[in-house]
Amino acid sequence: MTSNFNWLDRGTTEIFPNQPQSDNPNENLKARLQQNKEPLRIKLGIDPTGTDIHLGHSIPVRKLRAFQDAGHTAVLIIGDFTAQIGDPTGKSEVRQQLTPEQVEANAQTYLEQLRPILDFETPGRLEIRYNSEWLKDLDLTNILELLATMTVGQMLAKEGFAERYEKDQPIYLHEFMYPLMQGYDSVAVEADVELGGTDQKFNIAVGRDLQRYFQKRPQFGLLTPILIGTDGVQKMSKSLNNYVGLKEDALSMYSKLEKVPDDQIQTYFELLTNLPLDQLPENPRECQKLLGLEVTSHYHGRENAKQAQKSALSLVSGQSGDAKAVPEFSLSEVEFPVKLFYLLNVTGLCGSSGEGRRQIKGGAVRLDGEKVADMNAEFATADELVGKTLQVGKKKFMRLVG
Amino acid sequence: MTSNFNWLDRGTTEIFPNQPQSDNPNENLKARLQQNKEPLRIKLGIDPTGTDIHLGHSIPVRKLRAFQDAGHTAVLIIGDFTAQIGDPTGKSEVRQQLTPEQVEANAQTYLEQLRPILDFETPGRLEIRYNSEWLKDLDLTNILELLATMTVGQMLAKEGFAERYEKDQPIYLHEFMYPLMQGYDSVAVEADVELGGTDQKFNIAVGRDLQRYFQKRPQFGLLTPILIGTDGVQKMSKSLNNYVGLKEDALSMYSKLEKVPDDQIQTYFELLTNLPLDQLPENPRECQKLLGLEVTSHYHGRENAKQAQKSALSLVSGQSGDAKAVPEFSLSEVEFPVKLFYLLNVTGLCGSSGEGRRQIKGGAVRLDGEKVADMNAEFATADELVGKTLQVGKKKFMRLVG
Repeated sequence: MTSNFNWLDRGTTEIFPNQPQSDNPNENLKARLQQNKEPLRIKLGIDPTGTDIHLGHSIPVRKLRAFQDAGHTAVLIIGDFTAQIGDPTGKSEVRQQLTPEQVEANAQTYLEQLRPILDFETPGRLEIRYNSEWLKDLDLTNILELLATMTVGQMLAKEGFAERYEKDQPIYLHEFMYPLMQGYDSVAVEADVELGGTDQKFNIAVGRDLQRYFQKRPQFGLLTPILIGTDGVQKMSKSLNNYVGLKEDALSMYSKLEKVPDDQIQTYFELLTNLPLDQLPENPRECQKLLGLEVTSHYHGRENAKQAQKSALSLVSGQSGDAKAVPEFSLSEVEFPVKLFYLLNVTGLCGSSGEGRRQIKGGAVRLDGEKVADMNAEFATADELVGKTLQVGKKKFMRLVG
Repeated sequence: MTSNFNWLDRGTTEIFPNQPQSDNPNENLKARLQQNKEPLRIKLGIDPTGTDIHLGHSIPVRKLRAFQDAGHTAVLIIGDFTAQIGDPTGKSEVRQQLTPEQVEANAQTYLEQLRPILDFETPGRLEIRYNSEWLKDLDLTNILELLATMTVGQMLAKEGFAERYEKDQPIYLHEFMYPLMQGYDSVAVEADVELGGTDQKFNIAVGRDLQRYFQKRPQFGLLTPILIGTDGVQKMSKSLNNYVGLKEDALSMYSKLEKVPDDQIQTYFELLTNLPLDQLPENPRECQKLLGLEVTSHYHGRENAKQAQKSALSLVSGQSGDAKAVPEFSLSEVEFPVKLFYLLNVTGLCGSSGEGRRQIKGGAVRLDGEKVADMNAEFATADELVGKTLQVGKKKFMRLVG
């Protein structure tokens, strides 16, 4: 393996335990990486609790890929069992439970979305495991054993729980099982390293404790930052509508990324690309364009990314080379349900509802890049549209916002 | 069945729910008893966490017997599974976990001790169930379901937990499972009524909640008092050495009961006998003797009880009819380990260690009624002796105290 650890350090917030001067492979991950002859097992758990993954979620996945490229085994855990509870980390209230069918469907779309990031091809580099494999067979005796490793005080000290308890918001007892279940995943797959966002430190530490309890070698934790959203203010989140989804079409993705605020752009490059940070363009506008091109290329290939860049630049005709981003239309004053042809009219993309109907019929109307051919297409709520790009022909675009 | 409910009310602290004027069989137990054509299922759970049952424990068991006599089915649950955790109620610290072998051995001695109280003979009046029957098969999904019925706040409000949490004493997470597990017992056996000491109100209420959650008819709770020990001050407890064990020989049992303080004697009659309370002797001394005779009869038969009374009365020769109780000897100044023959000397039961040896050899020495024939018998700690009666021949007795 390698002793150049730039790939490990890039965008890493914390590794624990960490004794930088030590060559003890139990307390220094780099020592472990150098001394170990066999590939290490690098765990990343994802709970298929929704359908969309965004760039914020991609950060630990990209780190997982870096481990793959360094010759290690990615152990991707699909938390099909834990997803039924949901990680209470950072949640201000108890999550609604999902059915096994919802979870399975979500798991499939997640894997599809991760395909461009991870190495699915090289033999031995990826192990996909569903945690129901070991969790569904735990009986009450096993579970009591897990529970007995922690105290109420330790659990209530956890971020999220502490606040809720202080505020007298109910914490249901099953939520306490979450850290233990996902910690037990580390025991089951014999993880050497677990990756996660900084908000996962507690959970990863529980994994270490349980491995120790079950007489396995405790894993290292490697924490990656929480990405700030395209608003430059809050953490990237679907509900805040400051996100870039991995499933978004090239134009939508590019358009959002080329608007990332200047003070975030260095972080975006560090976390979302492999480009050397000391060779970025000096012109901020060029930086934004490069970021859009580079990240969009990961998910849609270089050619599509270039095409998206071109479309974005030519959106405002006559202003090529210094294009404004895609114009936006606020849905706040639209009454729902709304017909698509009516929407084409009020957004100004078509001159009338009649023209809207004709453009749909003619196949010129796309929503987030997908053709809509149904003249009677209707949307029940704004949620179905917010964040999407409505397009007529090749040059008329409108981003729909809340 | 009957509409005279003296047997139900006697020594009962609380029945819940309880709407005394209602004839709704869901909120008034007497209405339920009168309206129900089938026998009700009366649950009493005992956790075989030790080997000795004392008179304090016998109180809800006696109430269970009263239900049997009224035609109902006693469902005696041996908490072989829950005993591995132990009920945290009223405990100031986490209980040491027992092995399945210890639990099974304890369960057997418990059943033996309950034999004189319950009706083991009449068909259909007693069902003995081990809660491992249903608890061992619960899987993580079931357990998460149980956990999700309660919040951390509700659990921490429970007596015992609240104090420990306040004092920063660790509460291990598995202890939270106890009320849920024993509550699930009520679901599994379809209990109509659950009996318990007043300290069991929380646990019994959890049983009601879980029955409701699993769409069963919720049980009634019937609470019995906690018995004050023979010291007349603290609750009866082995560790406080103010108890009367069901396994004690007739003389020991009688001797302790005839010393119950006057202010407790009415309660003892109410809770531990079936005698009409308005027909007790007026002379306090006679009252004590009657209590001793009556309770000892339950466990050893009338003849043995009378014999014990006679022995006790004649212990101090020449004072027959107004006997003092068995004299006591404090072990506090004895150095342990101690040989039996030496003890016979220092207690004054024998004139010398040599005489002690001879009496042992001659078969005249008994400890709590059991002959000790080993001349080298030795005791490692005072705990082995405290509360027992040492006897030489038929007339010399000494109760060993701490």
